[in-house]
Amino acid sequence: MAFLHDHDRLNRIGLPEAVLCEGKDNESLVHIITELDEHKDSPFLFTRLSMQTHQQLPVHLQKHLDYDPVSATAILHGCYPENSTQVAIVTAGTSDLRVAREAERTLYFMGLQPTVVTDVGVAGIWRLMERLEDLRQAEVMIAVAGMDAALPTVLAGLLHQPIIGVPTSTGYGVAHAGNTAMNAMLSSCAQGILVTNIDNGFGAACAAMRIINTFTREDV
Amino acid sequence: MAFLHDHDRLNRIGLPEAVLCEGKDNESLVHIITELDEHKDSPFLFTRLSMQTHQQLPVHLQKHLDYDPVSATAILHGCYPENSTQVAIVTAGTSDLRVAREAERTLYFMGLQPTVVTDVGVAGIWRLMERLEDLRQAEVMIAVAGMDAALPTVLAGLLHQPIIGVPTSTGYGVAHAGNTAMNAMLSSCAQGILVTNIDNGFGAACAAMRIINTFTREDV
Amino acid sequence: MAFLHDHDRLNRIGLPEAVLCEGKDNESLVHIITELDEHKDSPFLFTRLSMQTHQQLPVHLQKHLDYDPVSATAILHGCYPENSTQVAIVTAGTSDLRVAREAERTLYFMGLQPTVVTDVGVAGIWRLMERLEDLRQAEVMIAVAGMDAALPTVLAGLLHQPIIGVPTSTGYGVAHAGNTAMNAMLSSCAQGILVTNIDNGFGAACAAMRIINTFTREDV
Amino acid sequence: MAFLHDHDRLNRIGLPEAVLCEGKDNESLVHIITELDEHKDSPFLFTRLSMQTHQQLPVHLQKHLDYDPVSATAILHGCYPENSTQVAIVTAGTSDLRVAREAERTLYFMGLQPTVVTDVGVAGIWRLMERLEDLRQAEVMIAVAGMDAALPTVLAGLLHQPIIGVPTSTGYGVAHAGNTAMNAMLSSCAQGILVTNIDNGFGAACAAMRIINTFTREDV
Amino acid sequence: MAFLHDHDRLNRIGLPEAVLCEGKDNESLVHIITELDEHKDSPFLFTRLSMQTHQQLPVHLQKHLDYDPVSATAILHGCYPENSTQVAIVTAGTSDLRVAREAERTLYFMGLQPTVVTDVGVAGIWRLMERLEDLRQAEVMIAVAGMDAALPTVLAGLLHQPIIGVPTSTGYGVAHAGNTAMNAMLSSCAQGILVTNIDNGFGAACAAMRIINTFTREDV
Amino acid sequence: MAFLHDHDRLNRIGLPEAVLCEGKDNESLVHIITELDEHKDSPFLFTRLSMQTHQQLPVHLQKHLDYDPVSATAILHGCYPENSTQVAIVTAGTSDLRVAREAERTLYFMGLQPTVVTDVGVAGIWRLMERLEDLRQAEVMIAVAGMDAALPTVLAGLLHQPIIGVPTSTGYGVAHAGNTAMNAMLSSCAQGILVTNIDNGFGAACAAMRIINTFTREDV
Amino acid sequence: MAFLHDHDRLNRIGLPEAVLCEGKDNESLVHIITELDEHKDSPFLFTRLSMQTHQQLPVHLQKHLDYDPVSATAILHGCYPENSTQVAIVTAGTSDLRVAREAERTLYFMGLQPTVVTDVGVAGIWRLMERLEDLRQAEVMIAVAGMDAALPTVLAGLLHQPIIGVPTSTGYGVAHAGNTAMNAMLSSCAQGILVTNIDNGFGAACAAMRIINTFTREDV
Amino acid sequence: MAFLHDHDRLNRIGLPEAVLCEGKDNESLVHIITELDEHKDSPFLFTRLSMQTHQQLPVHLQKHLDYDPVSATAILHGCYPENSTQVAIVTAGTSDLRVAREAERTLYFMGLQPTVVTDVGVAGIWRLMERLEDLRQAEVMIAVAGMDAALPTVLAGLLHQPIIGVPTSTGYGVAHAGNTAMNAMLSSCAQGILVTNIDNGFGAACAAMRIINTFTREDV
Repeated sequence: MAFLHDHDRLNRIGLPEAVLCEGKDNESLVHIITELDEHKDSPFLFTRLSMQTHQQLPVHLQKHLDYDPVSATAILHGCYPENSTQVAIVTAGTSDLRVAREAERTLYFMGLQPTVVTDVGVAGIWRLMERLEDLRQAEVMIAVAGMDAALPTVLAGLLHQPIIGVPTSTGYGVAHAGNTAMNAMLSSCAQGILVTNIDNGFGAACAAMRIINTFTREDV
Repeated sequence: MAFLHDHDRLNRIGLPEAVLCEGKDNESLVHIITELDEHKDSPFLFTRLSMQTHQQLPVHLQKHLDYDPVSATAILHGCYPENSTQVAIVTAGTSDLRVAREAERTLYFMGLQPTVVTDVGVAGIWRLMERLEDLRQAEVMIAVAGMDAALPTVLAGLLHQPIIGVPTSTGYGVAHAGNTAMNAMLSSCAQGILVTNIDNGFGAACAAMRIINTFTREDV
Repeated sequence: MAFLHDHDRLNRIGLPEAVLCEGKDNESLVHIITELDEHKDSPFLFTRLSMQTHQQLPVHLQKHLDYDPVSATAILHGCYPENSTQVAIVTAGTSDLRVAREAERTLYFMGLQPTVVTDVGVAGIWRLMERLEDLRQAEVMIAVAGMDAALPTVLAGLLHQPIIGVPTSTGYGVAHAGNTAMNAMLSSCAQGILVTNIDNGFGAACAAMRIINTFTREDV
Repeated sequence: MAFLHDHDRLNRIGLPEAVLCEGKDNESLVHIITELDEHKDSPFLFTRLSMQTHQQLPVHLQKHLDYDPVSATAILHGCYPENSTQVAIVTAGTSDLRVAREAERTLYFMGLQPTVVTDVGVAGIWRLMERLEDLRQAEVMIAVAGMDAALPTVLAGLLHQPIIGVPTSTGYGVAHAGNTAMNAMLSSCAQGILVTNIDNGFGAACAAMRIINTFTREDV
Repeated sequence: MAFLHDHDRLNRIGLPEAVLCEGKDNESLVHIITELDEHKDSPFLFTRLSMQTHQQLPVHLQKHLDYDPVSATAILHGCYPENSTQVAIVTAGTSDLRVAREAERTLYFMGLQPTVVTDVGVAGIWRLMERLEDLRQAEVMIAVAGMDAALPTVLAGLLHQPIIGVPTSTGYGVAHAGNTAMNAMLSSCAQGILVTNIDNGFGAACAAMRIINTFTREDV
Repeated sequence: MAFLHDHDRLNRIGLPEAVLCEGKDNESLVHIITELDEHKDSPFLFTRLSMQTHQQLPVHLQKHLDYDPVSATAILHGCYPENSTQVAIVTAGTSDLRVAREAERTLYFMGLQPTVVTDVGVAGIWRLMERLEDLRQAEVMIAVAGMDAALPTVLAGLLHQPIIGVPTSTGYGVAHAGNTAMNAMLSSCAQGILVTNIDNGFGAACAAMRIINTFTREDV
Repeated sequence: MAFLHDHDRLNRIGLPEAVLCEGKDNESLVHIITELDEHKDSPFLFTRLSMQTHQQLPVHLQKHLDYDPVSATAILHGCYPENSTQVAIVTAGTSDLRVAREAERTLYFMGLQPTVVTDVGVAGIWRLMERLEDLRQAEVMIAVAGMDAALPTVLAGLLHQPIIGVPTSTGYGVAHAGNTAMNAMLSSCAQGILVTNIDNGFGAACAAMRIINTFTREDV
Repeated sequence: MAFLHDHDRLNRIGLPEAVLCEGKDNESLVHIITELDEHKDSPFLFTRLSMQTHQQLPVHLQKHLDYDPVSATAILHGCYPENSTQVAIVTAGTSDLRVAREAERTLYFMGLQPTVVTDVGVAGIWRLMERLEDLRQAEVMIAVAGMDAALPTVLAGLLHQPIIGVPTSTGYGVAHAGNTAMNAMLSSCAQGILVTNIDNGFGAACAAMRIINTFTREDV
């Protein structure tokens, strides 16, 4: 049962390989990381690597990994070359930060320097208004929000850029673990909002990268 | 199986009698309206009386009813004495008007003159901002919205009054016939929003009336 | 990623700042409480602060907090000035007490002295009847109930005050973690019941405060 | 594909044969009724036979059927011998009557004379209280209710008899076509309520008959 | 906040008092059991008292309780007088035993000696057939089954007694924690099956007792 | 936008081409049938072709089609060569016949002569028992059932053949348009039942054909 | 209650005004179209305008509208200036065409000439493979698919462009009116797929336009 | 409450006895295994026996069991005689391996030598294409996939064998614990896919065995 490193993925779809650690046992993870560690010239991203699991990895592997506990991501062998496209990640509340950070780290891994604008949920609409001019600079926007998830709707009514909504599983009761936020984004009356799975900051960053690769890079 | 006129309801809970016509056959409706028509000194409200059903009523009953097709409501024997409390009904989109009108007509029947502010959905946030000073005059606010239903959240972050959210069944797909709007309102991150059943403009008006009766009338 | 104290919230919406502790890690909580602790003249409320998390706070912070384990709330720097409006909190069963207490503590923090009437579920309707005269004194009623949640319906048929229903997640099987209670309240045949998210005692108290602020205070 | 008359059912399970007409086309229905009509000494019950379908039957078949449009039931060849057990059918609202009538007609067909107590929903609890002594006479109770369906809970807290709850599909929005009523009945905090499928008045009557057959008849 | 012993319940509804321990903290439980222990002449039943919680009770209370770990029930001060009505509890699989035992213990507490017939699920229909004559002796039947829950349907097609279906939360995936079993029972094509909440063996026993009290006892 | 006849399908997957008519407008259907009619040597199957739509086809096309209204299927250019494998289609109730007939017609089209055993639902278990020896002759079994759908479970406990369960959308209320039947089949405690989508008699026949093709034909 | 033409929308968010006709009565539609018809220099798009409603419009309005019955869209006053960005719309089955056409018409209205690739569902994977080189030319891809909706997953594994998945409500039973397709797209194991509401071809086109506007136009 | 060894099952339905360990306490498991261990000539399979539970069994029982931690299965007294039918188990991702292994071990126990083809999810369609010739050798195919579960659809479009889809509970958010995968498989546009409960590798193997027993063995 060998883990097959998909060397060609970058050429094929413009996205580097990433390993979802959630649901894999420690033994398999050690096996995979060790194998990938041998490809010193290829950067790798690990997502949903919990702090507990990270601490149980062999020390020499821990040392090779650039680990971030908030987003539960680790980067192996550095990042991809820089890309100057402006991406803004906007969050509604502090509970959404772990998801926003996953998107941020994924973009960072792929060579981008996203701007993160936090705590501009529409229950305090003036906070969003104060940041509007900054947001106009972005070429792609990722809006991370849970509960009623009204943030992407307000953004889409004010700005012309592509907007990727990432619903989060914050909240309780009828927040229904992010399903209410997701459905609210998908049924938004604002035009042209696109949505990912709940808590999928990684997917939002990959989608942003598809846009950027197609329109700004010449080598794809 | 006589229909019992609940004469005492007004004294008991401060709300006049209303008849939900949906789900009742024409024969029963004629029977009920005829019976209530004999109580000339008591005003009555009929809700969810479709235009088709209204047209099938005997002509003399049609004449006694003040019928409004948008809200599908009819008033018999006029309204209750005027009450000067300011209620604002705010709607997100034109599809929400039938529900907003049901709330408006119910309040009108109970003696109020609500202000209706339409088409201020948060996908066009500046339209709401322009009406903010008007809204500050209201003592109770009813926010009618479907789809992502972000309107009450924005209102609750800007204003201090009681806010009654009425989710509507507008939209398709994951709007889920109003359930997404309802869940978004209930899980709002803004503090102190209260919610009614989907499309229940009548209930929102009754709830507003409970507040008004308790705090502004001396005869209850 | 500084936590921004929203100094102006009280002026804007008449509700003081509250921190939802659930979903925040200990480190962030210590940071936030420490920061707010410096505003000695501003009272703060913390909700969903579990006993376990409370015990892990630094001792000097624990000492500054007035903590209540049943409701999992803590108050910092005392309460707001007294307000004499009568609020009644009515509960159906003993399992609903933790939610009722969250509403009670939030109101207490905002200067009210709510009356709590426990164990008057409609499976023992005579217990509710015995307390009816007491309940008539209240100006706002908060009805906390799980499972079939019939309590607000019975109250709304007997009394004229505003009634805020708070469904609770008690029960098993088809109680569906409070969704059945919530849907039963929202589809009640009694007129004018308003509803909050499941287990949201804090939200019910805030909604009550919006009513009280609008109708009884002159400085808002 | 002959329709097989199950002659032995009465001996086996104490319940006579009944034909659910809903979902059968007119041609098949005519075939079935004609066939059963030949068994002149066996009474038959037809449920969910819409008025429209009934009117499309051949005239001679219509004449043989004792048809009731409210319950959409028809009886062929009279009823079973009388049984003096007292069954009470209690309904919350007028919209529940069609279901209550289906239970009533099924019991009538099986020889019982049920008492029907209408319009005693718990939003007007005093109406139920006034009928309590009458209800104490019943040996089995069938409680028919939609929306929040609190009626069986209140009854079960006051009376000792077996209580069969029949949820109805009345109401809109979160009434969810009777599912809220059904779940509320099933998760009632009152002890020992039993429940049927939504709108299943026929099933409730059959269940009552199982009790009566077992405990009051000697020939089963 | 005293726990009120409902002395009169037995007279009123024919069912003794029972305490649902799930969801109550140890401190409250000790308080309640201690209080009830003083009423030496009244038997009490405790349900959903986990083995772990039972072991944490003070030793003298443990000694007073007749505890059964399979059903997680405890009896205090013995049982009610014997009643000779025959009740059969039938189970589909071994995973349903904990629920069947809860029904059995509740009936035993109320003076009955139910017969328990295990492991007769319809995937092995001949096992059920072999026990059919035994089951004909019962006057009330409680059928406990999870997953596809076909047992009550087969029973109801073969026997004439009242049948109380108790769906259980056994199984995984689309068993949906008992909801599939419950819905299958409620939509059974067999006539007159009655259903309780998922895993509610206690409720089934109470419902059986309502039948028995009404038809066999003279003192109710 | 030409409709492409997939000539090669039979060679590739052993299943002939079939056209799902539901959801296609009359104009497109006429276009497709006319085109396929030119391939006189290829048999074609049309499913979910309502009687109404069939009658609106041009008369010459109607004449070419072998139409069956119960299953709403039509066959063009005859059937495939005969295959002697025994398939049994077993149904629980008469309402399931339309789905059973769709499976039967699809198999007939593919050269089989399935045996159809009707009305052997487990509420009358003896009827199934009487047919058991007949069923032992089948090499593949298709069990069509709605509501509680216990039929495949009983069959799978008695017989060793492959069993394909087809849930049907018969029933009301918690039958949930076939979802309860489907979930009951999927969570059956009997070993090795396989399931198709709700009402998918065509799919069950295709699955049976995959088995038959693989194990009995030499030309695939 | 005037309908307010939002003149500024194009400048603000780069998307022209569109009117959702579904849910609006004929009278209102005539009013709106008449009003917009006066702005001869502004192109307008009407979506979900059923053929029946279109035929009931006054003849002179019908003549002004460029109506397409498959997509149920109408264009008033021509289209926006041409834009040479390549967009591909890919569909899985013929039932998805109405949604694909809505996207196509919306893009056409906004000046684009999208390529539509039909009938390349993954049940016939070779058909998709044959079109792969064509698809590589596209700069944005819209994948329209119902039922199991595997198309975007396969595309995203082969191509590097941005992919917008539009789930459709085709299919029956567990297709759940498009929810299964939507959830399958959102939980795809392929990286970076973005999703719209069910059947929302218009929204997908708007999202594509946001990308195109941001990266290819200089006047936004 | 003795555990009855169903000696006759193999003769009756061609499938040996298997014990589902999940949901049984350790004491019962020890009792069952000890009892079965006495039947030295009968092989037994234990499923869902967690590593933790396995380690808590008495050492002598552990020694008798052939335990596999990935699939959580144990075999007692060896396997059934070899059968040369070719079964292929195909998996989409590494997270699906535990379920695939359960199917593999069950088949192995019943005398088969299944081929397992891993990591051929359709997000990398070329990997599947490379294995296609190998897969053509199989006589039955089991396709194990979670999330969007497109694998069986692609297989069914390319191959003619019977295909048993096993949805897995991998993924998060709208993967809905395997329900999305299951619904996607059931509503596949490819013809003749059959489906088991979520994560039910054991059931898929039993279903394969029913096919193999019927068509390849002479002694059944």
